[in-house]
Amino acid sequence: MAKTLVFVRHGFSEWNAKNLFTGWHDVNLTERGVEEARNAGKKLKAAGYEFDVAFTSVLTRAIKTCNLILEESDQLFVPQIKNWRLNERHYGALQGLNKKETAEKYGDEQVHIWRRSYDVPPPEMDRNSPDSAHNDRRYKLLDPSVIPDHESLKLTLKRALPYWEDAIAPALLKGDVVLVVAHGNSLRALAKHIEGISDEDILNLEIPTGEPIVYTLNDDLSFVSKKYLD
Amino acid sequence: MAKTLVFVRHGFSEWNAKNLFTGWHDVNLTERGVEEARNAGKKLKAAGYEFDVAFTSVLTRAIKTCNLILEESDQLFVPQIKNWRLNERHYGALQGLNKKETAEKYGDEQVHIWRRSYDVPPPEMDRNSPDSAHNDRRYKLLDPSVIPDHESLKLTLKRALPYWEDAIAPALLKGDVVLVVAHGNSLRALAKHIEGISDEDILNLEIPTGEPIVYTLNDDLSFVSKKYLD
Repeated sequence: MAKTLVFVRHGFSEWNAKNLFTGWHDVNLTERGVEEARNAGKKLKAAGYEFDVAFTSVLTRAIKTCNLILEESDQLFVPQIKNWRLNERHYGALQGLNKKETAEKYGDEQVHIWRRSYDVPPPEMDRNSPDSAHNDRRYKLLDPSVIPDHESLKLTLKRALPYWEDAIAPALLKGDVVLVVAHGNSLRALAKHIEGISDEDILNLEIPTGEPIVYTLNDDLSFVSKKYLD
Repeated sequence: MAKTLVFVRHGFSEWNAKNLFTGWHDVNLTERGVEEARNAGKKLKAAGYEFDVAFTSVLTRAIKTCNLILEESDQLFVPQIKNWRLNERHYGALQGLNKKETAEKYGDEQVHIWRRSYDVPPPEMDRNSPDSAHNDRRYKLLDPSVIPDHESLKLTLKRALPYWEDAIAPALLKGDVVLVVAHGNSLRALAKHIEGISDEDILNLEIPTGEPIVYTLNDDLSFVSKKYLD
């Protein structure tokens, strides 16, 4: 029996609105983001999707999007599991910086490399920074060696993949209809794995905010198709 | 080290507003209920409570209250576990009936007994009713023999207690600060167990909606005190 997996990227956030590098910084959705999330829930309800489990990150903008989707589709009772491995790519020392200012400081080309290369991470965030995940209680039960100070997309996939293997894939294999609400780069990383996209091509994959993407997979979780809902 | 457990009864619901017996029927919060939930979150934030885990039922009004509390207290990342054993008391065939009409049909005294006795359940709901939990997909993985058709407060405690023993108590014992967002009668049942309240006295325990109740327990989970937040 074909497997059904739905990805949703969280809606527009406060730092999207300010054009700041966000990464692991925990910002809220804007009103527009809330509306995007509600609309995603309405679309999923209209299309009749009934989830067995929902996975999301430990960042507010994704969790809130997930909650609004479940609420609008009348399935708030669905078990929801929050895990740091679904977090956005960690943007290191760039987090909190205006994208335009960063370009002026480091040069357009360097910023383009950080944003668009597969395996070049931005500068590390200082672990003493109040914004470092090392100083955030939500990560207090993690081995400090796995808490990133910066990430490339490659490193994002490296830490997201074990969660696919240990939690999401097993749910699909037992027949669950699975919802994953996460971030532009964590979903891009998982899409790379699922669809077998090359290191070169993955950077061209844009995942729109608040749009459910429905994957159909074979029994062995190999890729069949993906579609957007009308 | 003393253990900290916070109970919150969900805010005002659509069927509270209509004066209907609700039980396991899945109604939403009213706007007033949403405000109560947000205020509970603000009080908990002001008092500095940092939760390690949140438990709630599989009914929308409790889950939404829990989500709003976590959101308003800036800790939406806290793991949340939804379990049917924290559901409201099942009101059997009375669910969906106007409380006044029920009194006219069965007599004031009988309704008083159903509402205020410890161990007399109301009439059973027909399992073929569309409102029966037997026809609700959220209970599809439960042994049908544990899905109630009606409950007294005694039966409510009987099915809630294993969840206390197997999930909530272990979390407290390992030092977690625990939030439980549930219902008037499931919280009353747990309060009976925790505080050692008699069968006779428990019906006089009123739990206000949207008010955090902070329990302090000894290392062996014996009762020390409870308080409301200002």
